[in-house]
Amino acid sequence: MSHLIDEFQAYRSKMNEKILSADNKVMKRIYSVDTLAYQEGALNVKTKEMLGLVSSMVLRCDDCVKYHLEKCHEQGTSTEEIFEVFSIANLVGGTIVIPHTRRAVEYWEALQLK
Amino acid sequence: MSHLIDEFQAYRSKMNEKILSADNKVMKRIYSVDTLAYQEGALNVKTKEMLGLVSSMVLRCDDCVKYHLEKCHEQGTSTEEIFEVFSIANLVGGTIVIPHTRRAVEYWEALQLK
Amino acid sequence: MSHLIDEFQAYRSKMNEKILSADNKVMKRIYSVDTLAYQEGALNVKTKEMLGLVSSMVLRCDDCVKYHLEKCHEQGTSTEEIFEVFSIANLVGGTIVIPHTRRAVEYWEALQLK
Amino acid sequence: MSHLIDEFQAYRSKMNEKILSADNKVMKRIYSVDTLAYQEGALNVKTKEMLGLVSSMVLRCDDCVKYHLEKCHEQGTSTEEIFEVFSIANLVGGTIVIPHTRRAVEYWEALQLK
Amino acid sequence: MSHLIDEFQAYRSKMNEKILSADNKVMKRIYSVDTLAYQEGALNVKTKEMLGLVSSMVLRCDDCVKYHLEKCHEQGTSTEEIFEVFSIANLVGGTIVIPHTRRAVEYWEALQLK
Amino acid sequence: MSHLIDEFQAYRSKMNEKILSADNKVMKRIYSVDTLAYQEGALNVKTKEMLGLVSSMVLRCDDCVKYHLEKCHEQGTSTEEIFEVFSIANLVGGTIVIPHTRRAVEYWEALQLK
Repeated sequence: MSHLIDEFQAYRSKMNEKILSADNKVMKRIYSVDTLAYQEGALNVKTKEMLGLVSSMVLRCDDCVKYHLEKCHEQGTSTEEIFEVFSIANLVGGTIVIPHTRRAVEYWEALQLK
Repeated sequence: MSHLIDEFQAYRSKMNEKILSADNKVMKRIYSVDTLAYQEGALNVKTKEMLGLVSSMVLRCDDCVKYHLEKCHEQGTSTEEIFEVFSIANLVGGTIVIPHTRRAVEYWEALQLK
Repeated sequence: MSHLIDEFQAYRSKMNEKILSADNKVMKRIYSVDTLAYQEGALNVKTKEMLGLVSSMVLRCDDCVKYHLEKCHEQGTSTEEIFEVFSIANLVGGTIVIPHTRRAVEYWEALQLK
Repeated sequence: MSHLIDEFQAYRSKMNEKILSADNKVMKRIYSVDTLAYQEGALNVKTKEMLGLVSSMVLRCDDCVKYHLEKCHEQGTSTEEIFEVFSIANLVGGTIVIPHTRRAVEYWEALQLK
Repeated sequence: MSHLIDEFQAYRSKMNEKILSADNKVMKRIYSVDTLAYQEGALNVKTKEMLGLVSSMVLRCDDCVKYHLEKCHEQGTSTEEIFEVFSIANLVGGTIVIPHTRRAVEYWEALQLK
Repeated sequence: MSHLIDEFQAYRSKMNEKILSADNKVMKRIYSVDTLAYQEGALNVKTKEMLGLVSSMVLRCDDCVKYHLEKCHEQGTSTEEIFEVFSIANLVGGTIVIPHTRRAVEYWEALQLK
């Protein structure tokens, strides 16, 4: 299961490096705003990561979902809380979110076992 | 400004009644799951409403945004917190979310003045 | 209420003429394929118009919804059938389809009264 | 080819069970509304499954497309009818639907050979 | 017709100011990256604005379309070129882009008459 | 790396043939309009392919992105230009475009090495 996590993280790191090394200013700034946006503010990091997770689910981006699941896991989000995020995503985004929820549950399980 | 709120709420109520009176079981159940999903659970109501708000923004549904802004307002969400939700929506969803943010800011202001 | 229909149809006709008079071959062909696609085939016109309607709803295009509601009305689709199309759209597409359903119900009512 | 079907169905069943066993009420209700929505009503099951199929295609959800292709196959939908559904999806949703149509055709073929 | 332009620009300016005055760092940076992205680079400004236009059309954001039409107009883009952008948007994004094309044509005409 | 390209092209060709051999008039016409749209006109082929690329990215269709990367490569588009297209896609479409950019960079590299 951790194989699922390792593969995803290795590919993501390798390609992010290539994107940043291309020396396109706009891409670099988008990456830096991305870091800034999830920092502690009026809302705490855990809440912000759940906001990132639910957005990724309704927009149906599996890799974004995986990334935010990792971050939610780091923040100590419980499985019950994660399923409440999933439930809002499936309600607002509709049943087309179900296949992404299946893959999200698989990844969440892998994170627990790590 | 409160005119903006009153008009939206009146139309929403009137049409929701028509939808429910059509006696379609599936539509009725979707409405009832919608109520269930935002109730206190492992996550509190305020967090869930912010999850609903950010989902509505990245999916660019102005009326859904208005609805969740009302609920966030009822839950005592601060303007600073709301802008952090907006910022994640604009980051994840891109600059096409900006026009919806403009209308969201206008509605949020109307809610403050009410 | 028929004012709702008349205004929509007048604007649509006027602007379609402008688009076609611009003499862009690709746009013209897209319009002609559009006509072709909804003609009687292995599936009848009524079924095809319901397919067009549900697609327009999940993609949340109010003007497309109005257009297909007109066509469904011409094909003698009942209100009960229309609500079953709405229910699948709201299920598959999620609660963000609700505001579009409100406007669709309003337009469908206008078509009945015409 | 039937390998394509078996793998998809096994993963879907396994993960659906996990989702339902998580005991989140909202997720459970969404699954039960999903069953309800495609039952015989004013529209027959075959028509409803085609509505589910076209919605899944324009929203570009490969797994949802596979699921509805299975259901359409069970309902005796002909290849000619299926292609008319595909054609409306590609027209309304644009050429970005083409790659999903390729995978849909592959899955449809697998279902014929089963 | 210029009334269409004036109203849009006035609302956009007013609300952009409110968003920026909220003093949310992430929102401010997104606005500044937005300015950076359309500056002369390996691609010229005119090409970049057409890229912004076609993206806005396939994502069906009327206000974004208006904004990029203004910029394309400033860059001396011809009506024939604009219609080629429209044609790719309608092909890739499908017939749900048509209603947005109608409004885009209206706004483009207003810009010519200004 | 060229393995990535060969596999994609083989599958695409095989399935396109199946789609066209199904003898559905609407599908055939969509394919022929698709060819027409990217031909030299008021805009040159290279610009049109970049328009197709950016549209595919914001709509997050990996296979469409690959196809237009091939065409951009044939037209002599530089890596710097391609990254400016990527940057507009990530700005307009948001950070959910990042995972698709990773795969696009990988494919673009494969095309360079071919």
